[in-house]
Amino acid sequence: MSAERLRQQLDFLVEIDRLKEIERQTRIVGGGRRENTAEHSWHLAMYALILAEHSNDDIDVLHVLTLCLVHDIVEIDAGDTFAYDASANTDKDERERRAAERLFGLLPADQAAFMWRLWEEYEAMETPESRFANAVDRMQPAMLNHVAGEASTWKEHAVTVPQAVKRLSPIGDGSATLWSHTQSIIDEAHRRGHIREE
Amino acid sequence: MSAERLRQQLDFLVEIDRLKEIERQTRIVGGGRRENTAEHSWHLAMYALILAEHSNDDIDVLHVLTLCLVHDIVEIDAGDTFAYDASANTDKDERERRAAERLFGLLPADQAAFMWRLWEEYEAMETPESRFANAVDRMQPAMLNHVAGEASTWKEHAVTVPQAVKRLSPIGDGSATLWSHTQSIIDEAHRRGHIREE
Repeated sequence: MSAERLRQQLDFLVEIDRLKEIERQTRIVGGGRRENTAEHSWHLAMYALILAEHSNDDIDVLHVLTLCLVHDIVEIDAGDTFAYDASANTDKDERERRAAERLFGLLPADQAAFMWRLWEEYEAMETPESRFANAVDRMQPAMLNHVAGEASTWKEHAVTVPQAVKRLSPIGDGSATLWSHTQSIIDEAHRRGHIREE
Repeated sequence: MSAERLRQQLDFLVEIDRLKEIERQTRIVGGGRRENTAEHSWHLAMYALILAEHSNDDIDVLHVLTLCLVHDIVEIDAGDTFAYDASANTDKDERERRAAERLFGLLPADQAAFMWRLWEEYEAMETPESRFANAVDRMQPAMLNHVAGEASTWKEHAVTVPQAVKRLSPIGDGSATLWSHTQSIIDEAHRRGHIREE
């Protein structure tokens, strides 16, 4: 085990501390502040651990957890792109790819390649594990918005029912049970006026 | 799959959002604010994932990750107990046990038992996985203090070399390599006056 290898690993682990400063749109349950991406990633991993039994397909839970922990690290350079902001989403791929090159490039080559594979797998949504990780990544902010009610980012950004359904329906590719529950959340938010008709 | 079971799981996942409000002593790398326990738990899981190869013993990485994600959830009720605060540590066990009863008790019985087993395993430090999880849990704040320098909580709380060695030496039970590196961090902090002689 070379000292240089450990140094690269620790440099990466110090650098990704910055994920604690990346602000998302969603608000935490207590108090009014917005959630940061590091604590979101922890929460997501807990969603995956507790809800794994609801996956449509058999999944390797370790693999889902690593996808949850790693997939947002590129936001350190690329920032969080609000899911309902169409214009910001046009150059999201390019921004995130440059971020992955710099950040994963801090690691020894084998671990950089491991991070790249995880991130690309997550984005492609082609494996059962990435479909389930994507499902909880969409459900967790929906749950926070459900709890926030009047203070939801759906209301703040005047999100419509068709927009919410488009954003959240991929939950069904990971879990029919969780998508069914999320639909009931959308219905209730619509009834209460937190999500607009159109 | 009963609707009641899913409701219990989601109640638990909403409740543990509160971990984002539990403040630790350590400061994040950028800016002056202190770290919260949710983002700390994410960072810890990343430490475990990237540094697993340095474990003294063969470890099941999924198991280490779940220990990292789950072991601090009791702080939602019990608060973070600063490692160098001897008086606060006297009733820590009792406070955390009551917290575990309430929080894990929100889950279906089988998952509550799973959480209890993880938490007790972490605390006992008897398995290779819990020794390695404890090692990174002690190393991560040491790394943040190393980066913080003058602003380290070691300096803020006038921590001494014997106190730091006592707190951090269990890193060696999980990883001789990581303990050797941490010793060099303690030495440097001592040389720079961030950790006192005694």
